[in-house]
Amino acid sequence: MSESNKVGRYKAIAEPFHVDFNGRLTMGVLGNHLLNCASFHATERGFGMMNLNQNNYTWVLSRLAIEMEEMPYQYEEFTIETWVENVYRLFTDRNYAILNKEGRKIGYARSIWAMIDMNTRKPIDLLTLHGGKITEYICDAPCPIDKPSRIKVGNDECVAKLTAKYSDIDVNGHFNSIRYIEHILDLFPLETYKTKRIKRFEMAYVAESYFGNELSFFMSESCDNEYHLEIKKENNELVCRSKIIFE
Amino acid sequence: MSESNKVGRYKAIAEPFHVDFNGRLTMGVLGNHLLNCASFHATERGFGMMNLNQNNYTWVLSRLAIEMEEMPYQYEEFTIETWVENVYRLFTDRNYAILNKEGRKIGYARSIWAMIDMNTRKPIDLLTLHGGKITEYICDAPCPIDKPSRIKVGNDECVAKLTAKYSDIDVNGHFNSIRYIEHILDLFPLETYKTKRIKRFEMAYVAESYFGNELSFFMSESCDNEYHLEIKKENNELVCRSKIIFE
Repeated sequence: MSESNKVGRYKAIAEPFHVDFNGRLTMGVLGNHLLNCASFHATERGFGMMNLNQNNYTWVLSRLAIEMEEMPYQYEEFTIETWVENVYRLFTDRNYAILNKEGRKIGYARSIWAMIDMNTRKPIDLLTLHGGKITEYICDAPCPIDKPSRIKVGNDECVAKLTAKYSDIDVNGHFNSIRYIEHILDLFPLETYKTKRIKRFEMAYVAESYFGNELSFFMSESCDNEYHLEIKKENNELVCRSKIIFE
Repeated sequence: MSESNKVGRYKAIAEPFHVDFNGRLTMGVLGNHLLNCASFHATERGFGMMNLNQNNYTWVLSRLAIEMEEMPYQYEEFTIETWVENVYRLFTDRNYAILNKEGRKIGYARSIWAMIDMNTRKPIDLLTLHGGKITEYICDAPCPIDKPSRIKVGNDECVAKLTAKYSDIDVNGHFNSIRYIEHILDLFPLETYKTKRIKRFEMAYVAESYFGNELSFFMSESCDNEYHLEIKKENNELVCRSKIIFE
């Protein structure tokens, strides 16, 4: 298989209700596009949610790291490229490049996925699934950003709380992966987004939360412009971690 | 101009993070698609935001009413048709039909728009704009749902409050029209959506709200399954009204 066939390419546009007050695509919407493209790319190769649901298997997103030089502006077209970088027994690394309307790369992303059996909630061995066919799609396209890193919240200050509502819940009954991103962005005052932009955004999904869960947000500034966050549900149980680097 | 040229047709798909726990497209996301299609249709005919911004004119959404027999299911393709039903001096009526993947009409929507000069905030006379060219697009395609109706909240019970955050704010610095819909849907318990579906949803946009505004939600059940809502900002100032009919 040629390297170029291994890369999926998908066009999108920065819709007016998907940009922030600066007119730039929001990180949550970009995350949504990335996960959609992962789904398209996997489905076209026989590894999508729709193919897997027949076996009661599903993909579970573990990590997401996005690093952008600039965000598409309102009404601008952009392209997302995605490919599989590595396949291990229990995890696979999927990377992304984001290209602006002129075809210049304006950012990259990395994601780590596991596959589980929805009946047993146990992980599936990716190297034996379909006779290891997924490894045929491994591609060494460049992705010059750091791998997802360690996130450590330094103090116990709860900066916000919310109760999971209807719009937060996805088709699996779980708190929607993208909604966590939006709620995290909402922790910062408008002033932050007036004077800075997000250079790097990371999510580590640890446990599911559900409708009615009370989520507490903990945040610490580890160094200038770098924030580490944790979301916990009742009983102090960790749901996810996040890191944001502004510049 | 033939009638069929007056109708814009746009395909969409119910993306996985845009469906609710029932796997059905959410009303907020459908509203977003409708407003996007309005924008595409107007832009293609020289009346879009992008064309108007040169004059410092902009479209302002006044009313939106959506009535659905069923919502597209996760991963299903659907089509939105949109056309101009009427043009008056200060308002225009734009209608929509929503077609499922087999091309059957599964819902309709009506919207009412005004155009304003962003410098003076005064309305523009649509019948004289571009020599009244917009009236050439008037089309009498069927839209068999009621026009936006009177909304009257019967009591003063505040059922929820929230402070407008980063993700709520659009490129104009206003609270995003779609976000109001999502926050209104979040007033209802999951139980409501387990046993009922939204048959009709209406919004009446009255005044803008901004980052940091504290919004109060007032709701009354006017009769079985019919809820009337108001959102007010500080000083009891009305921001918008909404009506939801479940079945």
